[in-house]
Amino acid sequence: MKLYSFEKSYKMFEEAKRMVPNGIYGPRSPYFLTYGSYPCFFTRGRGSHVWDVDGNEYIDYMCSFGTNVLGMCNPEVDEAAMDQMKRGESFTLPTDRWNELAAVLVKQVRGMDWTAFGKNGSDVTTYATSIARQHTGRKTIINITGAYNGAHFWCSHSTAGIPEEYRAHVCSFNFNDLGGLEKLIGEHRGDIAGVMLTPHHHPAMADQVLPDADFYRGLEGLCKSEGIVFIMDDIRCGFRLHENGSHCYYGCEPDIICFGKAMANGYPISAITGKAAFKPAAEAVYFTGTHFFAAVPMAASIATINIINRDSVIKKLFDTGVKLRDGMLAQAKDAGLQVRYTGHPVMPFMRFENDADFSVNRLFCGEAARRGVFLHPHHNWFVCLGHSQADIDRTVEVAGECFKIVKENK
Amino acid sequence: MKLYSFEKSYKMFEEAKRMVPNGIYGPRSPYFLTYGSYPCFFTRGRGSHVWDVDGNEYIDYMCSFGTNVLGMCNPEVDEAAMDQMKRGESFTLPTDRWNELAAVLVKQVRGMDWTAFGKNGSDVTTYATSIARQHTGRKTIINITGAYNGAHFWCSHSTAGIPEEYRAHVCSFNFNDLGGLEKLIGEHRGDIAGVMLTPHHHPAMADQVLPDADFYRGLEGLCKSEGIVFIMDDIRCGFRLHENGSHCYYGCEPDIICFGKAMANGYPISAITGKAAFKPAAEAVYFTGTHFFAAVPMAASIATINIINRDSVIKKLFDTGVKLRDGMLAQAKDAGLQVRYTGHPVMPFMRFENDADFSVNRLFCGEAARRGVFLHPHHNWFVCLGHSQADIDRTVEVAGECFKIVKENK
Repeated sequence: MKLYSFEKSYKMFEEAKRMVPNGIYGPRSPYFLTYGSYPCFFTRGRGSHVWDVDGNEYIDYMCSFGTNVLGMCNPEVDEAAMDQMKRGESFTLPTDRWNELAAVLVKQVRGMDWTAFGKNGSDVTTYATSIARQHTGRKTIINITGAYNGAHFWCSHSTAGIPEEYRAHVCSFNFNDLGGLEKLIGEHRGDIAGVMLTPHHHPAMADQVLPDADFYRGLEGLCKSEGIVFIMDDIRCGFRLHENGSHCYYGCEPDIICFGKAMANGYPISAITGKAAFKPAAEAVYFTGTHFFAAVPMAASIATINIINRDSVIKKLFDTGVKLRDGMLAQAKDAGLQVRYTGHPVMPFMRFENDADFSVNRLFCGEAARRGVFLHPHHNWFVCLGHSQADIDRTVEVAGECFKIVKENK
Repeated sequence: MKLYSFEKSYKMFEEAKRMVPNGIYGPRSPYFLTYGSYPCFFTRGRGSHVWDVDGNEYIDYMCSFGTNVLGMCNPEVDEAAMDQMKRGESFTLPTDRWNELAAVLVKQVRGMDWTAFGKNGSDVTTYATSIARQHTGRKTIINITGAYNGAHFWCSHSTAGIPEEYRAHVCSFNFNDLGGLEKLIGEHRGDIAGVMLTPHHHPAMADQVLPDADFYRGLEGLCKSEGIVFIMDDIRCGFRLHENGSHCYYGCEPDIICFGKAMANGYPISAITGKAAFKPAAEAVYFTGTHFFAAVPMAASIATINIINRDSVIKKLFDTGVKLRDGMLAQAKDAGLQVRYTGHPVMPFMRFENDADFSVNRLFCGEAARRGVFLHPHHNWFVCLGHSQADIDRTVEVAGECFKIVKENK
């Protein structure tokens, strides 16, 4: 196989470093990938394929970290966005899209009675904490150790530049550990406003954890008896595991659910939904932003959710994810390698056994990138509607070659 | 003059209230305008004109609360956005637009050496506070009493659902009051990380305040001698008072400047810029968001800033703003009314003398809205490139009629 090279990408990265802190920040940083074995900049995309600035083509399994559930440049979504663009993007008042998207979400997300729109995932997870606090008159928010609920002060994984007081009243337990939750409830009895969970646990640089059979039933029992608001952070899983919210997939009943990423196939919008009982608190909390009213992402979201419903997208994603998993695991086995492939098939996390520093995973994923398959060594991958059988076949073929390289380098 | 009616708007508002907290939140709420005398939903826009869902046409002086500096649906900006849309909106990596916009901003904003992109204004004002804290190893942030620096916990104007600890280490002084700043410095000596100011003071429901001749010189002297980071929140004024940042208009030299709103003519993006000395701190602070990398708003921003430079937009805005001011004040005088018309002509705030509860302003602005001139009774207005001489003439004519109504109702 011809190996890609990335001259223009790394030249541009050097330019970027002169103008932008860290050049590229967050999990898109070349340093969080496999430095030298990945591109740094893309220039166009179509379906499951993207092209970098050196002209290399990739099958993309990151989908912009989960936004592109239908693939890049979905014609129907983009047409809806362009139609709205011709009428206007940002207005002094909301547009007709406001009620339309609200109606779509309230109908779509099972058990939810109202919705509000933000821009980032953090906008709505943070709003959810304030609603829980306002509703209960309590202060403590419980989340999951190692979970990512956004980049705001209260939940950032970094403490740099954040006074410690800004993280007060937040504590965490391990996913599935009901005993740990009970212990926190005992320690903070009467002061716990809400518990925030992702549908399953999908941390960076660690195996994903699916909920145990009794976990959500136990958690809901504790929330009910203690008057704790159950908040689901469905930003990464939402519209990927189930059409009506991931709580339908895992069989639980949150009070408040946060969405983002896949809801508009890449257009910038997030949303919160909630049960009627929490609407007065949602109305008392201040929540706004100039760009929260932008109409183009709302038009894109309406189109995206329509396609998800109409085209059996969830089932197709699942089937594709299973094929990817089976192919990858077969190749690993053929190479005599032990891998851990965790989470749901549409958003798997893969790592190697005995690879605590992820150096083997970086080698594997870097070699895959140089052969046109874009995985991530530290973050879960994403399957999208654009991934074809040919994509999966090619991916599995490339993976076979990369597993062999790993084996030879062990 | 035929008066507008708003049947469909208020019917839709009732629908919205069933699905969305408060129906419409933030300063776009019908309750923050003049309930019953304003539309609630727009459906399309072109230049300075917008149309509501009942078919009424308006000259819009809110410009989506400041984003639409060139007017709605600027053909060049929208073409750049659509071109990018055809290549892709959200990618797993940044696109070529990343470096392009960074280069544009670093060149454009005088004295700034680096930039980073967010989505909301709050994303970057909050990032600025962390950079200042990280850079200095101190905790206290000083801002201006009554100023709006965003909706995040540390600066929200509401306390609902926010633990009081989350507002620790923030204190404020009155704009222009150097004595007040010196007092805070004395009280928090050695612990002040940064001071954040808007270029001039533009609070809601109060007169704007321009900087006194010696204010910024004095402030800069204090910042230098105390090692305090000088942060400018140029989100509302930026690319409106001066091509190169409002600090050039008011003659000061901030260390860090935050932009949003006008920088992309309505597409959702914000940016922070800073001097080289603060880049290491910016690199140490965690700052990211899935949608921060969306390419369409970057393409729109590049096009917007290009037009601002090429077409003498700042001068044209100023001339339009002066015409609006002179016309409004002449009509008020003719009607024998005392009004206060404060701030910069491109973003004026108008209120009536002896109207502490703003009821007179609500009457005036509501009557204007019913005649096709969209002002805001509680928030500063915005002039855009789309406002024509005919718009100003019509606005002044409508204002004359509305001032008479106010006079008759006093």
